[in-house]
Amino acid sequence: MMNKEIINLQSKINADLNDIYSSGPASLVETFNYVMSGKGKRIRPLLTLLTSKSLFGEYTKSYNAALAIEILHNFTLVHDDIMDNDVLRHGKITVHEKWDTPTAILIGDAMLAKSINILTEAKYNQNLIKSFNRALLAVCEGQALDKEFENKKYVTENEYFDMIEKKTSHLIAMPIEIGSLSYNSPSIDSKNLFNFGLAIGKAFQIQDDFLEIMSTPKIMKKSLNSDILLGKKTYPIILCNKIDKNFTEKILKNKNTEQIILIIRKFMLKNKLDVEIEKKIDKFYKQAFNYIKKINFVNEDLLNFVNKLKKRRN
Amino acid sequence: MMNKEIINLQSKINADLNDIYSSGPASLVETFNYVMSGKGKRIRPLLTLLTSKSLFGEYTKSYNAALAIEILHNFTLVHDDIMDNDVLRHGKITVHEKWDTPTAILIGDAMLAKSINILTEAKYNQNLIKSFNRALLAVCEGQALDKEFENKKYVTENEYFDMIEKKTSHLIAMPIEIGSLSYNSPSIDSKNLFNFGLAIGKAFQIQDDFLEIMSTPKIMKKSLNSDILLGKKTYPIILCNKIDKNFTEKILKNKNTEQIILIIRKFMLKNKLDVEIEKKIDKFYKQAFNYIKKINFVNEDLLNFVNKLKKRRN
Repeated sequence: MMNKEIINLQSKINADLNDIYSSGPASLVETFNYVMSGKGKRIRPLLTLLTSKSLFGEYTKSYNAALAIEILHNFTLVHDDIMDNDVLRHGKITVHEKWDTPTAILIGDAMLAKSINILTEAKYNQNLIKSFNRALLAVCEGQALDKEFENKKYVTENEYFDMIEKKTSHLIAMPIEIGSLSYNSPSIDSKNLFNFGLAIGKAFQIQDDFLEIMSTPKIMKKSLNSDILLGKKTYPIILCNKIDKNFTEKILKNKNTEQIILIIRKFMLKNKLDVEIEKKIDKFYKQAFNYIKKINFVNEDLLNFVNKLKKRRN
Repeated sequence: MMNKEIINLQSKINADLNDIYSSGPASLVETFNYVMSGKGKRIRPLLTLLTSKSLFGEYTKSYNAALAIEILHNFTLVHDDIMDNDVLRHGKITVHEKWDTPTAILIGDAMLAKSINILTEAKYNQNLIKSFNRALLAVCEGQALDKEFENKKYVTENEYFDMIEKKTSHLIAMPIEIGSLSYNSPSIDSKNLFNFGLAIGKAFQIQDDFLEIMSTPKIMKKSLNSDILLGKKTYPIILCNKIDKNFTEKILKNKNTEQIILIIRKFMLKNKLDVEIEKKIDKFYKQAFNYIKKINFVNEDLLNFVNKLKKRRN
């Protein structure tokens, strides 16, 4: 699948998301459409559709589920933005900032409700519904762990991997799994695709954490400040802490976040942590592709898309 | 079913809710159990179980769904308490007050996730899942309308009935419907039971709104202040406004809430609105029982319980 085809698919998804919730209370419809008109890359529904396409040459059966998944993802963003006190998302003012916290809580709840309503209305099979619901609970638990870690001085690598598996990977693995479950694939294939997704989800998250420290804010298009100042345990912090248990305490004595980032970068380069991180990312990608090497795909669309995501540098 | 049997059933529900979420992140498990140990009357799961019992003489098949319903109900309470800035719920400090808003948002999300996970794990049929999900969306929309009405000067009776049907009645009707759907009842019976629930839900809400004005805070065990000061459109307010379009504006000039309540009471009695409200409650109960008159119940447990709820005066 060419880049142009991805762009066409994104446009189709955007157009359909724009029409999906129009007959509800005016306040919900307005905020729903505000959120869904954000400039997200629609990675999760694309993963669902491209999985179906690579397995079965088409995606008609998984299309409604793909839309539900994107709405679910956006529900998590709206609530996370309240919890993390973020002001911008995809270049737009967040809901709780533009309106208020009650509005943001309620539209998040309604988006979640709408997403599972889409699934039941489309009469999907029980395995698909189960996969969706399991990811939902995992995401909540991952977010809880992420918040717990903010107040922990020291977090092990395994605790971190468990947290990002729940918080990030499930929302990558489930969309891929559902691309196969909506066509009633053999369960061994669905399971392998799910595990493929868990591994690439971890690679993505580590890559994101790494870029957050190594890029300038302009490239990353995101404030670098909030995560570090909140005490978030990102992968570079985990590794720095492994070498020096008092690392986070030390850097947080500094109040200038740009200086903090420079200190982290210097410490990482000195201890070759950049090399270690790149190796870890490769390890997870290798693990991921191992899971699916026995699957007979009819085309390379899914793999090409994942490789494209792998190469992104912002 | 005697009162003692209801109490035994409540104890069983409480014990099982206490065990249902123990292996998650510590912060979630703690808040989950804090919320579920609240002194709720478990009306919704009781409605589910008693519907099954009155139709089929047992409730084993609907039991897990009944627990899921109580968890769903408590999710709505946790998020509503944030939105309405309430400090107490069932005599306990609310989650956002005891911890903070992010904690309350997240535990609400996790409770919702847990409730639909219970349903999928128990492998319920699609009709049951659909009924559950429809109620979830209705509750969000009802809450949105309730918030919209706070800023509206004038709300019609029909707008009010639509709002409480979504906000309150669906979470009465769905539990009753699910008591029958978990046993694959004929769809005409499930539909009639659902409509029965919508009507008694409206009767309950009007009764609550009425008691809120007519009772002293001691009896109602709830702060009377917040609803009126927030500009909530409860049924007495709707009827007062129907007679005098500027009624709410006028009373809110007064800053003393006790005095406001006395003014409302006086206005209601002068215009015989108390009689009108009692008539409306009776009308909805009559409508409700009409829906189920053709259903062959094996016992009176459901009807006795609903009649008991009807008679409550606090």
